[in-house]
Amino acid sequence: MTKAYDVMAATCPSRRVLHRIGARWTIFVVTALVDGPMRFSALKSHIQGITPKVLTETLRALEYDGLVDRTDLGGQPPRVEYALTDLGRSLLVPLAAVREWAETHVPDVEASNAWHDDH
Amino acid sequence: MTKAYDVMAATCPSRRVLHRIGARWTIFVVTALVDGPMRFSALKSHIQGITPKVLTETLRALEYDGLVDRTDLGGQPPRVEYALTDLGRSLLVPLAAVREWAETHVPDVEASNAWHDDH
Repeated sequence: MTKAYDVMAATCPSRRVLHRIGARWTIFVVTALVDGPMRFSALKSHIQGITPKVLTETLRALEYDGLVDRTDLGGQPPRVEYALTDLGRSLLVPLAAVREWAETHVPDVEASNAWHDDH
Repeated sequence: MTKAYDVMAATCPSRRVLHRIGARWTIFVVTALVDGPMRFSALKSHIQGITPKVLTETLRALEYDGLVDRTDLGGQPPRVEYALTDLGRSLLVPLAAVREWAETHVPDVEASNAWHDDH
């Protein structure tokens, strides 16, 4: 059976999807939402160093792709909350594993870098 | 227990590691090597649309980070083969899951995009 979608094919639409998932801050926002909905300001504090502009753009892209839901809680000033959709939660699993890999293997990567710098 | 590494911390070295894993073509090269070593030309054919320059840069970065081994097979013209290291193989698991997600969820993402375009 041929796969319906294959990222190795230049014109396959899965390549665009992969590109979006791979956007710089996607993994930060998706894994930050693991424990439930968060307000914009809480996300900004949690993901250290992200600018408001980039966080806004990342959230909009995630909303457009159906991974994050934006809920207006009303009030003055208006309060807005972001949460993973079911689709976003299905992406959380592999992205959390990638993040875990990065956090676990820093010493291995640094050891390899040091070895190559010396040779 | 505090985690030794946390990508949410602005200066954590795991952020650099994550950034390297997230480089545009890393997932293509790592998942292409799932079945064993490949020559440069085979990789280039398999990953449609990748330029020789970008493939060379990606392989060098993966080698530097200890994820890919380069073996010179000798001969004239020289033949060179690339393979995942044990570390690279440990990264293959989460990256293959991300790729699988992208290839599986194209219709969901496209449906969300179409919905947002209409609203």
